[in-house]
Amino acid sequence: MRRFTYLLIVLPLFSFSQHEEKIKEIYDEAFTNGRVYEDLRFLCKNIGSRLSGSPEAAAAVEYTRQLMETYRFDTVYLQPVMVPHWVRGKEEIVRAINSDKHGTFDMNALALGNSVGTGPEGVLAEVVEVSGIDEVNKLGKKVEGKIVFYNGAMDPTIINTFGAYGGAVVQRAYGASEAAKFGAKAVIVRSVTNRQDDIPHTGSLVYKPLINKIPAVAISTNDANELSRILTEQTINVYIETHCQNLPDILSYNVIGELRGTETPEEIIAVGGHLDSWDVGEGAHDDGAGCMQAIEALRLFKVLGLKPKRTLRAVMWMNEENGLKGGVEYARVAKEKGEKHIAALESDSGGFQPMGFSMSGTDDQKDQVKAWRDYFTPYRVWDFDQNGGGADISPLSPQGTLLIGLRPSTQCYFIYHHTPADVFEAVDKRELELGAASMGALMYLLDQEGIK
Amino acid sequence: MRRFTYLLIVLPLFSFSQHEEKIKEIYDEAFTNGRVYEDLRFLCKNIGSRLSGSPEAAAAVEYTRQLMETYRFDTVYLQPVMVPHWVRGKEEIVRAINSDKHGTFDMNALALGNSVGTGPEGVLAEVVEVSGIDEVNKLGKKVEGKIVFYNGAMDPTIINTFGAYGGAVVQRAYGASEAAKFGAKAVIVRSVTNRQDDIPHTGSLVYKPLINKIPAVAISTNDANELSRILTEQTINVYIETHCQNLPDILSYNVIGELRGTETPEEIIAVGGHLDSWDVGEGAHDDGAGCMQAIEALRLFKVLGLKPKRTLRAVMWMNEENGLKGGVEYARVAKEKGEKHIAALESDSGGFQPMGFSMSGTDDQKDQVKAWRDYFTPYRVWDFDQNGGGADISPLSPQGTLLIGLRPSTQCYFIYHHTPADVFEAVDKRELELGAASMGALMYLLDQEGIK
Repeated sequence: MRRFTYLLIVLPLFSFSQHEEKIKEIYDEAFTNGRVYEDLRFLCKNIGSRLSGSPEAAAAVEYTRQLMETYRFDTVYLQPVMVPHWVRGKEEIVRAINSDKHGTFDMNALALGNSVGTGPEGVLAEVVEVSGIDEVNKLGKKVEGKIVFYNGAMDPTIINTFGAYGGAVVQRAYGASEAAKFGAKAVIVRSVTNRQDDIPHTGSLVYKPLINKIPAVAISTNDANELSRILTEQTINVYIETHCQNLPDILSYNVIGELRGTETPEEIIAVGGHLDSWDVGEGAHDDGAGCMQAIEALRLFKVLGLKPKRTLRAVMWMNEENGLKGGVEYARVAKEKGEKHIAALESDSGGFQPMGFSMSGTDDQKDQVKAWRDYFTPYRVWDFDQNGGGADISPLSPQGTLLIGLRPSTQCYFIYHHTPADVFEAVDKRELELGAASMGALMYLLDQEGIK
Repeated sequence: MRRFTYLLIVLPLFSFSQHEEKIKEIYDEAFTNGRVYEDLRFLCKNIGSRLSGSPEAAAAVEYTRQLMETYRFDTVYLQPVMVPHWVRGKEEIVRAINSDKHGTFDMNALALGNSVGTGPEGVLAEVVEVSGIDEVNKLGKKVEGKIVFYNGAMDPTIINTFGAYGGAVVQRAYGASEAAKFGAKAVIVRSVTNRQDDIPHTGSLVYKPLINKIPAVAISTNDANELSRILTEQTINVYIETHCQNLPDILSYNVIGELRGTETPEEIIAVGGHLDSWDVGEGAHDDGAGCMQAIEALRLFKVLGLKPKRTLRAVMWMNEENGLKGGVEYARVAKEKGEKHIAALESDSGGFQPMGFSMSGTDDQKDQVKAWRDYFTPYRVWDFDQNGGGADISPLSPQGTLLIGLRPSTQCYFIYHHTPADVFEAVDKRELELGAASMGALMYLLDQEGIK
């Protein structure tokens, strides 16, 4: 009995320190010879923004394919997927034309993704300000023939800024159709950010079926405040001209690289980000960072000679921003092939200081990962209690896959999100490396221990 | 018996939720009507760098005094302290003059604080590279008449970058005297940073008594790598010209603002940062952020109508960077007056995402604060297990004061530390506000519960 007790105590300790050592190797390599920062530099500076269907998106597919080939992953291949093809066209005009104080003044604006354009004739109408969709429903027919200006702000008191984003983004996503129901001619949306500045934030909208599709633009928060201030003093007419349009769907690809498992290769652990970005900036935090971190996570296995038991797969999903077609197709093919994903891990919250991993799965699955928390606290990754995985991996949920999201600090994310400011220089090298190593370390534990 | 048990359970819960609510008010106010960001902007943009003894340091004293008066703290006063007065003088020249490849090339350099200057005649000598002080001691008389080039780097695998800083900074602090012992003419030090760039980092050195004081400069890490590379190919002579000098000590001040306690005013809780900075950049992260956060912490009490039981004191310590005279004088006066500081809290690790509070004190004192951890985890402040307080509050330690340091993420700190890059734009608004509110919340708990 005594000997039995002894074994029970000693074995887990041995296993802990063995894993601890390998995890340290993973972090050390990421910090000393890491590639993730330079890989991201190439993606941002040599390719840049890469909206689904754009030539740059095609370049990003080829770049990441070559990168994973260069790192000698066992298999690298493209998974075809048809994606929406929205183009912005000529620069937007959003112009107040009868301000008593300013006369004519132009606002910093971006058409919302998926929006129809006004075309060269533009839209000119009086502006009605609302704080959200509820108010439009109250106003009803009073918005007919008008431009509805959604000016609801993100709640600054919510600590996780993604929570505050969730509260405000509904007006961007659904505001156009809600206003069109009552005959509005167009909508202007306050940029969904917690900062006061001149930068407009784009992002996708969703038109409801059977409702007239009206043009939609976002304006900067400074312009939103000024427009709102003027509206307290006078009625104001705004001219909107946008040249965006939805072209026919086009062929693109998810890019997949694998390290094949040596013991149970049929069990797959996927890690990734989305390769597409909006058509402004360089898609550095959103989500070049996540893609390059995923490739780095597998490269760390390769270069450290860690032979995975299970199959590890880095996936660059296409079209998260305006369709999620890549994520949906990936899960469809996985099901069709009878693949078993025991876990899928996504980094799509920016390349900031990692704080933890969120999860979506059964309590039993989550508890297995939570038990590994002590491996991560030396690296300041501590929070395993939040819910959620990631948009691109969410279609795997019905297959029983444990979904995991890397959760960095959220305070700065909405400075850059969907803007021209989301460039390589906004990403910190060590924070990016910490995230890549943290994903590598979690993949290592998932591979060694599995998910029952 | 049943009633007694009932009370035992309910009272602590009531107290927890009462504190929880007040703490939420503190954070909400900081995020919605906070002043810390704009206060820091003024300090950085209208005053700028403020080395002890400089006119700008005097301006910063007057600015913070006025600021705390404006916020109607109960008492605002200056505490006189004599401080060192080092001046940089004309721009440094650090020039390799006989490189086969480059010919003459100038390095990005800053004289180290407290260093003597070369004067207009400069120093010209052959360079000997070493990785640290040990190597100088091994070389001994071989460095006589030479310029010693300390090229030890920060260890990138240490997660807390302050730990890596501690390993590398000894060559900056003591390298000059260690080389002078053996007759070296000057020293060049690799900038103490974990980044590869063109920015030189200054910082103080300490001359040992009875050893010849020789000039010392820091060069950027890019220049250090290039100099080191050239040295593998040829001997190289470097010309150094610096015009820095130590002037006589000069009168300056700690700036102190108080909210007087309503129940036990004789018990003091101090919160602060250091008002002086290096003479390059704007001293934004180091330590304008900490000073403005301390003032904001007290302002939050004032504006929320939280009447403290104990006396709360915001302190802007002078001369942390090259002497610590302000911190020493503050503790001396406190002792002389018989003041009882139950706790002192410093923010001097930059205005980044707060991660926790470190402490220096008895286990019993620390345990009392650790018991409050659950109040902070909703705000992502989680780590109460690190040791240490802060430089300026350390002289209070012999008085039995619990010392507490705000601990933000450390990954980005050494991009900016002691450089021209430490400017207002490098500080994030929400991260700064989170730090100020976290300090305010901890002061609230310290005030309500005391430290036994």
